[in-house]
Amino acid sequence: MSDSPKRVFVGPLVQCSIDRHLEVVENAAIEVDKDGFVISVTALDSLPSTEYLKSNNVTILPTGSFLVPGLIDLHYHAPQLPQAGTNLHIPLHDWLTTTTLPLEAKYANTQFAETVFEKVVKRTLGHGTTTAVYFATKHRDSAKILASCCIKAGQRALVGKVCMDNKEMCLCTKESLCTCTETTTESIHETRTFLEEMVSLTKSCNSRVEPVVTPRFVPSCSPHLLTQLGSLSQEFNAHVQSHAWESDWQVEYGEQNRNGRDLDLFQNHNLISKQGTVFAHSVHANDSEIKQLAHHQIGVAHCPLSNAFFANGIMPARLMLEAGVPVGLGTDVGGAWSSSILDSCRQAVTSSRILRDGVGKLRGARNGPCSHPAEINHVDAFWMATVGGGLALKKKIGRIAPGYKFDALVVDVHAPNSNIDSFDSLVDTIETKFQKFVYLGDDRNIRQVYVDGICVLDKQ
Amino acid sequence: MSDSPKRVFVGPLVQCSIDRHLEVVENAAIEVDKDGFVISVTALDSLPSTEYLKSNNVTILPTGSFLVPGLIDLHYHAPQLPQAGTNLHIPLHDWLTTTTLPLEAKYANTQFAETVFEKVVKRTLGHGTTTAVYFATKHRDSAKILASCCIKAGQRALVGKVCMDNKEMCLCTKESLCTCTETTTESIHETRTFLEEMVSLTKSCNSRVEPVVTPRFVPSCSPHLLTQLGSLSQEFNAHVQSHAWESDWQVEYGEQNRNGRDLDLFQNHNLISKQGTVFAHSVHANDSEIKQLAHHQIGVAHCPLSNAFFANGIMPARLMLEAGVPVGLGTDVGGAWSSSILDSCRQAVTSSRILRDGVGKLRGARNGPCSHPAEINHVDAFWMATVGGGLALKKKIGRIAPGYKFDALVVDVHAPNSNIDSFDSLVDTIETKFQKFVYLGDDRNIRQVYVDGICVLDKQ
Repeated sequence: MSDSPKRVFVGPLVQCSIDRHLEVVENAAIEVDKDGFVISVTALDSLPSTEYLKSNNVTILPTGSFLVPGLIDLHYHAPQLPQAGTNLHIPLHDWLTTTTLPLEAKYANTQFAETVFEKVVKRTLGHGTTTAVYFATKHRDSAKILASCCIKAGQRALVGKVCMDNKEMCLCTKESLCTCTETTTESIHETRTFLEEMVSLTKSCNSRVEPVVTPRFVPSCSPHLLTQLGSLSQEFNAHVQSHAWESDWQVEYGEQNRNGRDLDLFQNHNLISKQGTVFAHSVHANDSEIKQLAHHQIGVAHCPLSNAFFANGIMPARLMLEAGVPVGLGTDVGGAWSSSILDSCRQAVTSSRILRDGVGKLRGARNGPCSHPAEINHVDAFWMATVGGGLALKKKIGRIAPGYKFDALVVDVHAPNSNIDSFDSLVDTIETKFQKFVYLGDDRNIRQVYVDGICVLDKQ
Repeated sequence: MSDSPKRVFVGPLVQCSIDRHLEVVENAAIEVDKDGFVISVTALDSLPSTEYLKSNNVTILPTGSFLVPGLIDLHYHAPQLPQAGTNLHIPLHDWLTTTTLPLEAKYANTQFAETVFEKVVKRTLGHGTTTAVYFATKHRDSAKILASCCIKAGQRALVGKVCMDNKEMCLCTKESLCTCTETTTESIHETRTFLEEMVSLTKSCNSRVEPVVTPRFVPSCSPHLLTQLGSLSQEFNAHVQSHAWESDWQVEYGEQNRNGRDLDLFQNHNLISKQGTVFAHSVHANDSEIKQLAHHQIGVAHCPLSNAFFANGIMPARLMLEAGVPVGLGTDVGGAWSSSILDSCRQAVTSSRILRDGVGKLRGARNGPCSHPAEINHVDAFWMATVGGGLALKKKIGRIAPGYKFDALVVDVHAPNSNIDSFDSLVDTIETKFQKFVYLGDDRNIRQVYVDGICVLDKQ
């Protein structure tokens, strides 16, 4: 019906099934309703008839392009973009005191926040991140600015005002001049106000942007604050995000100072949200905890690049996936340098191969292969970047299928000046082009970005 | 003197010292003679006088740009570019039989070779590789085409016709139809002819392109072939390259079938060249072998990305560097997907951090930290990409210093559409920009490429 607000996209579709297989539809017709939901996905035998094209609002993909679901970044410290790629060689404590915390303190200035956050959203969207889960800073006004930037750019996002009231964790040179922590009262009050203000701020955007309750991690929050944040999350039906089992140090801190490990502690404080919970890293979750994550469908943000720098180990992605944990990917800027989830895909595969074999037989204590199957491939990685991220957030995103939101990328491996070399005589399947996109692709290969059925970036 | 053929480049210079420190000259004047040699590097207090500018052939770098030495890629399988980024998930044996060897067989066709090799050189040069050490295939004519492509594009290169006569290593479906090996006689004859023909082919190019004697690796070459290749290398004063200690399998093959390990075997066959020898990988060299590599100044091509896939371990880069081994970097396309030495820099740092910590305490045999200091940083990585590569090849390249060739890149972190976010109010030192270039830079940030004093690529 020509007067229908429905739209149809016609072209090749490449995505992952829920059970981690690659699905390729060489010629798909995808119907999308006015609210951005996919109505149907049909495999066509040939291009639609002229009659069909006339009677529908049809977009035919440019030759050589294909559609993939939009990428989901489950863990990004938006204020840290300016430091991305710098000072990763200095020890963690110094990295925090000389680089990260002084930078985060600058977000008391909302103008500074606006300058950076506009760049963050532009950068992630350009890399094909249709949904981002952001840590902001402790500053409520800056967190709201980040939300506004997402709304303005059309990115789906969860934005967290960061909570941290444990003065023991303060690394400022003078505690009296501390810029990195808040009082408990302040943290609770500011979080409540942030959640309230976000209701009206996000009214216009079809729920594409939401607040997420964000205790930084167990060591930086008092038990009282954690309890209050649990209540606020229930009261406002908000998602929860934090760091869990990231490093030896973090796990030991919880065990020694809070008499528990991350999952227990978050559960005790009612911080497992029905809306969805994202634990960043989860490198050192034990087998019983992995079972619990799967049982409660708690999301894990696998951040393989920053893990190499700060986690003292490689997250057993395949073990988690096979256990049924909703694992997605995170870039973890600025603990890692790259804002690209494709870079996370590549490092996830690379790290899994290192985990499989260990780090070498000589000169160390690490002998023999891993005691469980560890290797993942590009399909698993892309599953995490799309399907897994959607499952972690309990949202119908990450796939192009009926009932899902049309969050999608138009990919072109032949884009001008791209980093991919095409040899059509040899590499003529869509599947091989998809592999090259995962391993070699960058923003140059992403021609269009759709969120909620809306084209939010167009490089045509 | 205005009639002098000397040129002067004025601008910031960032590079590594021989002893792996970062050298930053905020305002350098670099004099280069007509043969492309650096005459002098002077730190200026201010911009040169108008008189100086007038009386010399001076190029002033665009504001915000800086010079670095050109990147050196010590290990690149040029014929494998078409498969880069594909089929890395299939087991090694299948990867060879279904992907790599059938692809290499196609280079019997010189037209096909020309199409691919032109793209290879364009790609690597675009990524800032001013010197590349290439494996071609067993086909002499195709190897010559690769050399011609390098000459035409102005890239400094060592090109090897690959030698492999061990029919046991043939993986073709029918030995009678084998396309992946040669007879011993053929291999020796073709190598000699290749070396002879390269003399006239490269006459015009100021020795920028040279042949390199290239036994594929110990398992693929008979002892007789290795001996003959040793003699040819001495006779023609040619470099030698091969793979050494790459994987468990390779090391075991040598021990069980040739009664020795790689270094001993290459030494026994006179395959350590005075001109320079490059062993790709060297992951499993033992402590005494590392000492020998340093003693004989044998170059190692560290290929951290492909090592994650095929090497069963991480090369102890820091241990090698501290022992004095001339370690450079290789991309190892297509065992890895990326043609960018900057990607190798990043993975070298990342893998070194994983080596430092091991792969995790749970579920595996690998406990505790590494038994030696393992972590390298961006300076070490860039040292390998430049200085180390030059030392491995025994050439005066990899630094901008008197007596060295002017092989250099003009880097601009502010390049349009680049992957680097600049925040000049925060990040205003050249050193921080250099860090961002190493971690986030790509071909977009390389404005100009100089080889031998000649501008071979200009994106102005």
